[in-house]
Amino acid sequence: MCRPRDRADGMGVERYESPDAETVADVVSTALHEGAVVTAEVACEVEYDGRTSGYLGPGDRLVVAKPDGTLLVHQPTKHKPVNWMPTGGTIVTSVAETADEPVIVARRSNPRERVEVRVRETYGLTRFDAADAAEYEESGTEAEMHEYIEAHPEELEDGLRIVEHERETKYGFIDFYAVDAEGTPVVVEVKRVQATLNHFDQLKRYVSLYEDTGDVRGLLVAPSASERVERACRDAGLEFVALPEFETDATLGNATLTDFD
Amino acid sequence: MCRPRDRADGMGVERYESPDAETVADVVSTALHEGAVVTAEVACEVEYDGRTSGYLGPGDRLVVAKPDGTLLVHQPTKHKPVNWMPTGGTIVTSVAETADEPVIVARRSNPRERVEVRVRETYGLTRFDAADAAEYEESGTEAEMHEYIEAHPEELEDGLRIVEHERETKYGFIDFYAVDAEGTPVVVEVKRVQATLNHFDQLKRYVSLYEDTGDVRGLLVAPSASERVERACRDAGLEFVALPEFETDATLGNATLTDFD
Repeated sequence: MCRPRDRADGMGVERYESPDAETVADVVSTALHEGAVVTAEVACEVEYDGRTSGYLGPGDRLVVAKPDGTLLVHQPTKHKPVNWMPTGGTIVTSVAETADEPVIVARRSNPRERVEVRVRETYGLTRFDAADAAEYEESGTEAEMHEYIEAHPEELEDGLRIVEHERETKYGFIDFYAVDAEGTPVVVEVKRVQATLNHFDQLKRYVSLYEDTGDVRGLLVAPSASERVERACRDAGLEFVALPEFETDATLGNATLTDFD
Repeated sequence: MCRPRDRADGMGVERYESPDAETVADVVSTALHEGAVVTAEVACEVEYDGRTSGYLGPGDRLVVAKPDGTLLVHQPTKHKPVNWMPTGGTIVTSVAETADEPVIVARRSNPRERVEVRVRETYGLTRFDAADAAEYEESGTEAEMHEYIEAHPEELEDGLRIVEHERETKYGFIDFYAVDAEGTPVVVEVKRVQATLNHFDQLKRYVSLYEDTGDVRGLLVAPSASERVERACRDAGLEFVALPEFETDATLGNATLTDFD
């Protein structure tokens, strides 16, 4: 059995293997109160009462509780939780009188809804003190940037000439195969979002395809890049080109998530 | 540091603390292939490409991968995942060339979509061999059953007479306060779904309120009850009454989940 990690290690994760009912109730209550996320692998049954009623018989599930009152019960398949309480609920965890089992209840009042998770067995429980200030930034598609670059190659570099758009290679499609003012081949990889190390990897792979044939350059084009990515490019002899006009200043946030159904 | 549990213990949970990139890639690939669910507490950045493009900068998140190709990335708040791939996606986990970091990519082809989770740090990883054959059964509301019982108390027991509907007590509302043919008080707790131990607990609590005043009986009324609940009732001197006409034979399943947005 694992003891909870010392939180002073800075990892922010405490794990409990096969905790008893009291421990589950304590850890969940304390964690949520203190702003941490809790994940539990359990056997449980679930009851919903609100707009309708519903019952989910015993089975193994992943339960996620968040400090904002979110409760999610996930079966081993499907992307939607089988039962849940949205943000703004109140989660109370207790020990059932009869069976020494943890009971997790999430409720809200408008509309009046209640999800009750009766835990038969807790295989494991994790408290996660997660820090996350990032917001999802949605942007248009890469196709828009491709059109722009095809029409304005000089925005990437004076004298750059596009030879081929979407050239197929054994590693996938190269966005643009171009030549510079000196006639040196240039592989151009375009990203619609802030450049990540993975984009850098991708460009590096494409460039490696042409290294046998002599000099070749690689340009990574994106609205922006982290310092980490710029450094990786510099170290590998590749170049990053910012097209800040494609930066999104509005964080559309979870716009695509309305499709989550 | 915890070593993975011996799976022969039957718990079906293996935990890895601060696994390295190779371990993450191996565990995730193997687990999904073998039908297990994976949960990871990570610092990561996420990229989405499909109907639009999007980028989520570094932060601490809970990543859930299911064997049906579902991938969920959960921030510490909000009930919806910030990024996800629905059931039917293909999840491939590898180690990034540059940074010795795990990269989890979920994709599908119709519509063409891709979610890439670039893991900066893996605090913990859990493989969960979850067995769950239960389906969520949705039924009507308790109000319908209340109306029925109020109109037909004889369906619960010959000679039963309802004295009060929804009597308030310090433990909450008693569904029906009644008297039987002998004049003995009867506390009736009504559930629209299969009776659980928690319902039994609730009835027991209500009945305890009246025990000081002499004889009192308790009836738990539901479409059905597990053997466990029937036994608990018997052992505690309470009675279970089935109203099987309220049983749902159609499992409406995730009907309420269409509201998950």
